[in-house]
Amino acid sequence: MAHPGDVSALERLLVDGKVQARDIVAVIGKTEGNGGVNDFTRGYFTQSLMALLGRHLGEPADVLVKRIPCVLSGGCEGVLTPHYVVLTISDDAHAAAGDAAGNGPALAIGTAMSAPLPAWEVGRLAHIQSVAAAVRTAMERAQITSPGDVHFVQVKCPCITAARAEAAKAQGHTVATADPGRSMALARVAGAFGVALALGEADAAAAVEDAMLRDFSVLSNRASISSGVEVEVNEVIVLGNSTAWSGPLRISHRPMRDALDIGAVVDVLAELGIPAAPQVAAAEAARIAAILVKCEPDRRAQVRGQRHTMLDDTDINAQRHIRGAVGGLVAGVLGDTRIFVSGGAEHQGPDGGGLIAVIAQNSVA
Amino acid sequence: MAHPGDVSALERLLVDGKVQARDIVAVIGKTEGNGGVNDFTRGYFTQSLMALLGRHLGEPADVLVKRIPCVLSGGCEGVLTPHYVVLTISDDAHAAAGDAAGNGPALAIGTAMSAPLPAWEVGRLAHIQSVAAAVRTAMERAQITSPGDVHFVQVKCPCITAARAEAAKAQGHTVATADPGRSMALARVAGAFGVALALGEADAAAAVEDAMLRDFSVLSNRASISSGVEVEVNEVIVLGNSTAWSGPLRISHRPMRDALDIGAVVDVLAELGIPAAPQVAAAEAARIAAILVKCEPDRRAQVRGQRHTMLDDTDINAQRHIRGAVGGLVAGVLGDTRIFVSGGAEHQGPDGGGLIAVIAQNSVA
Amino acid sequence: MAHPGDVSALERLLVDGKVQARDIVAVIGKTEGNGGVNDFTRGYFTQSLMALLGRHLGEPADVLVKRIPCVLSGGCEGVLTPHYVVLTISDDAHAAAGDAAGNGPALAIGTAMSAPLPAWEVGRLAHIQSVAAAVRTAMERAQITSPGDVHFVQVKCPCITAARAEAAKAQGHTVATADPGRSMALARVAGAFGVALALGEADAAAAVEDAMLRDFSVLSNRASISSGVEVEVNEVIVLGNSTAWSGPLRISHRPMRDALDIGAVVDVLAELGIPAAPQVAAAEAARIAAILVKCEPDRRAQVRGQRHTMLDDTDINAQRHIRGAVGGLVAGVLGDTRIFVSGGAEHQGPDGGGLIAVIAQNSVA
Amino acid sequence: MAHPGDVSALERLLVDGKVQARDIVAVIGKTEGNGGVNDFTRGYFTQSLMALLGRHLGEPADVLVKRIPCVLSGGCEGVLTPHYVVLTISDDAHAAAGDAAGNGPALAIGTAMSAPLPAWEVGRLAHIQSVAAAVRTAMERAQITSPGDVHFVQVKCPCITAARAEAAKAQGHTVATADPGRSMALARVAGAFGVALALGEADAAAAVEDAMLRDFSVLSNRASISSGVEVEVNEVIVLGNSTAWSGPLRISHRPMRDALDIGAVVDVLAELGIPAAPQVAAAEAARIAAILVKCEPDRRAQVRGQRHTMLDDTDINAQRHIRGAVGGLVAGVLGDTRIFVSGGAEHQGPDGGGLIAVIAQNSVA
Repeated sequence: MAHPGDVSALERLLVDGKVQARDIVAVIGKTEGNGGVNDFTRGYFTQSLMALLGRHLGEPADVLVKRIPCVLSGGCEGVLTPHYVVLTISDDAHAAAGDAAGNGPALAIGTAMSAPLPAWEVGRLAHIQSVAAAVRTAMERAQITSPGDVHFVQVKCPCITAARAEAAKAQGHTVATADPGRSMALARVAGAFGVALALGEADAAAAVEDAMLRDFSVLSNRASISSGVEVEVNEVIVLGNSTAWSGPLRISHRPMRDALDIGAVVDVLAELGIPAAPQVAAAEAARIAAILVKCEPDRRAQVRGQRHTMLDDTDINAQRHIRGAVGGLVAGVLGDTRIFVSGGAEHQGPDGGGLIAVIAQNSVA
Repeated sequence: MAHPGDVSALERLLVDGKVQARDIVAVIGKTEGNGGVNDFTRGYFTQSLMALLGRHLGEPADVLVKRIPCVLSGGCEGVLTPHYVVLTISDDAHAAAGDAAGNGPALAIGTAMSAPLPAWEVGRLAHIQSVAAAVRTAMERAQITSPGDVHFVQVKCPCITAARAEAAKAQGHTVATADPGRSMALARVAGAFGVALALGEADAAAAVEDAMLRDFSVLSNRASISSGVEVEVNEVIVLGNSTAWSGPLRISHRPMRDALDIGAVVDVLAELGIPAAPQVAAAEAARIAAILVKCEPDRRAQVRGQRHTMLDDTDINAQRHIRGAVGGLVAGVLGDTRIFVSGGAEHQGPDGGGLIAVIAQNSVA
Repeated sequence: MAHPGDVSALERLLVDGKVQARDIVAVIGKTEGNGGVNDFTRGYFTQSLMALLGRHLGEPADVLVKRIPCVLSGGCEGVLTPHYVVLTISDDAHAAAGDAAGNGPALAIGTAMSAPLPAWEVGRLAHIQSVAAAVRTAMERAQITSPGDVHFVQVKCPCITAARAEAAKAQGHTVATADPGRSMALARVAGAFGVALALGEADAAAAVEDAMLRDFSVLSNRASISSGVEVEVNEVIVLGNSTAWSGPLRISHRPMRDALDIGAVVDVLAELGIPAAPQVAAAEAARIAAILVKCEPDRRAQVRGQRHTMLDDTDINAQRHIRGAVGGLVAGVLGDTRIFVSGGAEHQGPDGGGLIAVIAQNSVA
Repeated sequence: MAHPGDVSALERLLVDGKVQARDIVAVIGKTEGNGGVNDFTRGYFTQSLMALLGRHLGEPADVLVKRIPCVLSGGCEGVLTPHYVVLTISDDAHAAAGDAAGNGPALAIGTAMSAPLPAWEVGRLAHIQSVAAAVRTAMERAQITSPGDVHFVQVKCPCITAARAEAAKAQGHTVATADPGRSMALARVAGAFGVALALGEADAAAAVEDAMLRDFSVLSNRASISSGVEVEVNEVIVLGNSTAWSGPLRISHRPMRDALDIGAVVDVLAELGIPAAPQVAAAEAARIAAILVKCEPDRRAQVRGQRHTMLDDTDINAQRHIRGAVGGLVAGVLGDTRIFVSGGAEHQGPDGGGLIAVIAQNSVA
């Protein structure tokens, strides 16, 4: 896209009939804002997208925005390219499932929206439970029965702006924090704990408020949580593999133990039959449909024993730093800059690291 | 180092006798400023370093600073670690050279300082010629006769601040540009052209003012130029291999064709006998003495056909973006974040790319 | 507004019938982006506004956007409040003009749009002439015959992004500059020169390309030029006083000689009968309809003989610095933070200063 | 000063004998860093200053730094000029005190240093008490017996960096916060509470940890607290008026109720006999020796009922925003940009506002 309001590429696909508007179930993308509380590129894109879909579906934008999750991560640091991935389910998505041709499981998609979350629940237990319930609903819709078949859960959570904090206070409520940046962090943790609960990676006794930003052994290796001012509900997209689905795509994931974990990148590609030695060849790269990465500046101010300066920087937000670095690494392995790299990976993957998921076409036999 | 004024690590080595102050001929480092005109971390480090060396050598700091090049690149974006490399020449540096043991060429070092460059010469032909002359002097001192044996030339050039531009104007001179950021770019190009001239990568007819920031086929694949407010002369460090030297270290380099050129990183390591598949193993990593990288946000606003947003960003300087991305890539291959990554690679390596040089110990047979 | 896509305040006025959509002729506002090339809050607001007006007028947004100038300045540094001023002309705008009641001249408004300006004309002579012609058209529409009765001309000019520069090059054209930030500056100067030509503040021999960013004696004391990626034509709004108009509003202006010129602020208010000693009282403040300010970080790196650091700052754009400072000063005099403060005042008001215009209701006798 | 390491102006005064090195008791200044955790311009200036004083006093810099408070606030946003105020006490400072000539009280200065504060005490009760004790000591040294005669107390407190937090943890201690930015805020509050205790503005029951950043009615109208990585002790400078002192200078102060409180600026000047209508005339401006301002972005995200965007900005730190705005206002009233404006005014002056103090020469009769 040429700018955050540019949905012309999708418009062409719709006009040309290559994509049917009614098949679109979710959108995941990166926009070129700062990725923080005052990043309005996400809202701008969403408004543009929903206006486009509204024209094609004959539904009002404000109805669509409540039905179709549009999860955006702001911040295209370094080589990262603003782009969006459109998830569609065609009529024949289940046609060949379980057929005699012996096709293995294919990419399965399920989405769900929670009820609106008031500012005073953001980043608290009610938030965790709200996300967990939405993830379970999305899994059912994706016809994934075993949590082990889920490879990536994207959640977009509301956060607390200074204005929302004041409004909540005026209504007699306390908020988890009045600091907007911290509220985004807490919202992401609540999302991660919700996913961990739903996928059985943590139990209800562990995924509690008290462990948030404290006990980093409570985590999900498949959760990717964003937070932003532009949403008021938890938007959930579950991606996995299922024999109930057919199609050419498959998904895989790996935790990344730190920001230098090139091994995880190479491994997840290898599992999908895509070699990188050291870079994915152009022919193989064409098979890749989406790269989804979550990362985090190590809280302990070090990477493999050496100091990093991300956390103490007043000029550049720490999440912008880490997205640029990890984006540069993954782009170098892939030879492509269209990567969804989202910061704020608290409790999403190993502490100080994160995770990577790749959706790719099956190789032709 | 813990902060830009911290030279305690070197102080310990000096006190312990592991490094002799008189052997120190140059320092190359990264400090955690913004890397721009108003990055004072470079001056702070230099002041601290020269005060330390002054105490150990009994020479005033203002004399030392004119003798020992201290080339710093500000900006530790992403995972990069503030650090410095101290280049020393010991008494027996030439002892075993050409000996019967059949040792091949070893790392050779030569330094030189130009005369002070007035603000009105910065970024102009006189600047190019000043650098070329200093590089030739440094090569002689390094006892490198063939330009092909030079693998890396680090130059630090003065730039034009708003104040210096005003002062020059008051003295009746015009300056190449009154824009401080642009002056840093022009100074870097002058440096690159000077190196290209000295190494025979370009001829005097090509490396002219008119080609600066226009004809990107005029370049040096071995020049790394920094620019900053804290210097008034061109400081030059030539690094190469020479049979006139002995010692355990050797240097190699590769141009990087773009910000995703992981192949160049793997290749230069391979040439030094260090495999990275996908990451350098800890045992091999211990052999690496220095990683020197130069990179640049592609002027054409694309990397491999995909848009990047670095050049249009009002919040984060484009050089900060690219250092973070390329630093993330190289650190991922190495498994180490102590990398000298310098932005502003105009005419230093292929357009839109840059270069990498590695100094490593020879492997034990 | 609560965010750059929030036009709910205007929507309420339209729904309540307090403003008629068909009366709206122009909008001037400040949005909370960075004010630079990659500030998309302007486009976001414009999209939201035009969608709203489209619903009320039954016209497509892409038609409206070509008819109603929407001039936005990004950047709400310091105390500045995101807000927008809606300029309307009601049916009885000319009713009482020249009546026996002896009302003096009232606020007069005229708008015009130039033809689309290709990237290769941005910041060049063709740009100057395009703006001058549009200003003359807008003056005619405002029924202002004497240039002396014009107090403020707001122009929004297109600029050159990295992508547009590449596209122009691909079509065989050179652009004035490939540097996006510099293109915004040149576009602003072209606009200022166009206004100066139209108002007789400069003649055709002076307002030429060669004087741009060089001869700062060529200027307009009534031009306020913005530049942004979201427009392709020059949008012009002329504001003045005219006896052909009736109504309670009047406009006045003053050049500001530098960023500390509090006298200009107090004087322009005094001319409208509003005392500030030191601050405008609440009752008088209620008469103020709009404050329009243009300012600039002094190129010579000094304010009244003392150094400022705005031009050498790699972390914060110089225009963001100056908007914050001048906004703080004007807001302190007014006791109100809803001020349109726009940076980039090259050739708009005295060099290193800028200008201020105020629209206020006549005081009740 | 030309850059943060430039102490040449003071050097000239020392060399010319206009200032005696032994008379220097404290330095307060603004340096052009970002004012945050990673602002090393403060350390750079301090190192330069102490090296200079060391040469003139024959004392080692590391001794001097523990004796002479050097309180720096980073961040010269907008029009602010990097500068420093050198406080000296000459031999005859008490000569004419209480003399028959009927001179009123004159500026009185007292300084004190606390013991080193470990990271785990930063921002806690022990920190408050440490500051209060140091303020009382400084008052005694200033020969000020009535707290009402104290007009300004500058304190510089240590903060917690990511590295210090890790170190404290390794020693088995918890820290008040691991977030560096928040630690600076807590340190400032501890300092403010300490001053409030010492001056009787609050009592020991009120100025407790629990009230920090919660109960903003606990405050000091005369405290100005900075926090930075470069100090490990609390450095205290008490300024007031006392009949035990003689000399031409006097100090006054006013709380500022918000960022628009131009009235406080005009009032404090008026108390010193300096009119501003609207700006201080040059002749009167020459009497001003120092302007000391403390300010704060209003926590409630509004200034006088209108939204501000400072707290939600990911690109520019909120303290940088407010310093630029309030600096612009005060500079406009003064006609001078050499103003010490420090952010982070939590509990220092009214909530959302701050305070201003002015040191000026008595007018000649």
